[in-house]
Amino acid sequence: MERRTFIKTASVAAAATAVAAPAIAQSAPEVKWRLTSSFPKSLDTIYGAAEVFSKAVAEMSDNKFQVQIFAAGEIVPGLQAMQAVRDGTVEACHTASYYYVGIDPTFAFGTAVPFGLNSRMQNAWQFQNGGMELMNAFYAKHNIHAIPAGNTGCQMGGWFRKEIKTVADMNGLKMRIGGFAGRAMQKLGVVPQQVAGGDIYPALEKGTIDAAEWVGPYDDQKLGFNKVAPFYYYPGWWEGGAMLHNFFNKAKWEALPASYKAIALNASHHANTWMQARYDAQNPAALRQLVAAGTQLRPFTLEVLEACLKAANEVNAETSATNADFKKVLDNTLAFRGEEYLWWQVAEYTFDTFMIRARARG
Amino acid sequence: MERRTFIKTASVAAAATAVAAPAIAQSAPEVKWRLTSSFPKSLDTIYGAAEVFSKAVAEMSDNKFQVQIFAAGEIVPGLQAMQAVRDGTVEACHTASYYYVGIDPTFAFGTAVPFGLNSRMQNAWQFQNGGMELMNAFYAKHNIHAIPAGNTGCQMGGWFRKEIKTVADMNGLKMRIGGFAGRAMQKLGVVPQQVAGGDIYPALEKGTIDAAEWVGPYDDQKLGFNKVAPFYYYPGWWEGGAMLHNFFNKAKWEALPASYKAIALNASHHANTWMQARYDAQNPAALRQLVAAGTQLRPFTLEVLEACLKAANEVNAETSATNADFKKVLDNTLAFRGEEYLWWQVAEYTFDTFMIRARARG
Repeated sequence: MERRTFIKTASVAAAATAVAAPAIAQSAPEVKWRLTSSFPKSLDTIYGAAEVFSKAVAEMSDNKFQVQIFAAGEIVPGLQAMQAVRDGTVEACHTASYYYVGIDPTFAFGTAVPFGLNSRMQNAWQFQNGGMELMNAFYAKHNIHAIPAGNTGCQMGGWFRKEIKTVADMNGLKMRIGGFAGRAMQKLGVVPQQVAGGDIYPALEKGTIDAAEWVGPYDDQKLGFNKVAPFYYYPGWWEGGAMLHNFFNKAKWEALPASYKAIALNASHHANTWMQARYDAQNPAALRQLVAAGTQLRPFTLEVLEACLKAANEVNAETSATNADFKKVLDNTLAFRGEEYLWWQVAEYTFDTFMIRARARG
Repeated sequence: MERRTFIKTASVAAAATAVAAPAIAQSAPEVKWRLTSSFPKSLDTIYGAAEVFSKAVAEMSDNKFQVQIFAAGEIVPGLQAMQAVRDGTVEACHTASYYYVGIDPTFAFGTAVPFGLNSRMQNAWQFQNGGMELMNAFYAKHNIHAIPAGNTGCQMGGWFRKEIKTVADMNGLKMRIGGFAGRAMQKLGVVPQQVAGGDIYPALEKGTIDAAEWVGPYDDQKLGFNKVAPFYYYPGWWEGGAMLHNFFNKAKWEALPASYKAIALNASHHANTWMQARYDAQNPAALRQLVAAGTQLRPFTLEVLEACLKAANEVNAETSATNADFKKVLDNTLAFRGEEYLWWQVAEYTFDTFMIRARARG
């Protein structure tokens, strides 16, 4: 093609593009999506984050972009949510990324890894240290685009039928504990058990299991674990700040108008803050009631925590040796964690220390 | 009116409402607002939060709702931002509510009060404990509707030319410190000084002032305070989690279509998280550089903190005695703070404690 002809053709193409620029009707189409939650409606804080997201999307788009929420089991089981999005059964899900560590352990970093980041650091890593981009490069291999959408804060270490005074007390312990953390527990002799939420209470009651971790005071109280296990341990070192995500089918995500992508991103931010704030507001009263009803709070001893850290570091090293994606994200988060706690120990931690001390003094 | 006539009339009214339901052109009008920031562009983290908000609003509305950002001084001085919104000079501002304690000390609670809530608790109070509604009932008296839009996290206690080893060392100290916290400082003999950001460095250098607080490592390093004051104290007990807000002119806010209100709310959530995450990501490297260049970090002693807490409690009691709005919000936040730290000291704090210990051990 001669240069002059090319320029003329290009100009015509540009003009055509200008004419085809989105009019209102094109940029705000009716979009109806389905989102499957990995959680039952009874967990009003986690499940509620998806409702907050859906409501915000509808309000911002004048109901033109609608995301209908389905509880776990209504379309697919809770632990199949990612697969349903990946395969296009639904457009979206609200889930915990670490449910899918059986497919690839790299999924763990989206939620929490043992001795990982606290809730605020997880936000800083995702939004300001390239964590979101790093994870989305990984999720893309599974046909997923992910946006953070909730956090539980640091979880409790769970309910135990007998006290854990030494590392030896963990040997042979049958404990309901999710995914990746179970591998570190195994190194200490714990026998990790996969038990669905609704089945934990009878298993603990009968002694089929010796211990179980779930979330924290607000959710745990609802399931009544305090009636069948007296000791409530902390902290949940495998979930220093467990983040939830909205997973979107990548092709569906990319086909959204730019304004709807922005609406979904900002609504996810809203849900992200809402869920953490709601746990923070609900946990204190539940903790108070549990203790009043006889629950005995116990910190894991330093010896136990040190042994768990050693075991978790070994699992990280073993996994990194055979999984390049895992190693890449692990190295990134470990460097970030070191920098974050360098700063955190100065102002944040000493402020909290004084406030806790002043409160105890009354 | 007879029942039958009423029903008929009501039906007609309902039908008319249905017909008048917003068409696209009505629900998405062109809206162009001006927002004055209380901050200069050089404070890229605080000023940047307003830019994040503006960009999100434009993206979500397909550029139909535009909020143009002006730096402090371009329309009004930084400390006049609220008044400019209240009086309708501009539709919105991004500011620290506690800048206006001279008008009413109740403004302090929007940002931070001495020994108040940490960053995450401030979110929980605002969004889940009725804090936002409580503050908006107060702000309405000043023709303002407010939405949280940023946080610095716990700030540093500032730069001192000499060490503060005892409470007696604070007596006579001329310190640059903002608004409400200065009143507690006064009870310890400190002479609070109002000095604009750009004038702090020469005042510290010449010895016109003995100490100055600003924000934290990232912002403080830019202003070079480390070159003229060797001691950097922590924590900034008067700003455990300093929150920023978008203030909207109440009448302008109420005239917005519902979808634009939702867009502004969700974009504020985005800015709220973005700013905290950005400080968390930027502060560590700045702290590291300051210490490498010779800055000496010093914790306030327990004796000093106890004396400051006593002074702050006295100021709170005195202010409550003459200001019913202040008392109402104070009582609400104190009760919430007690509950929050009851829970915080269990999982969150012990997780951070172990992580800080493990990091120090290497």
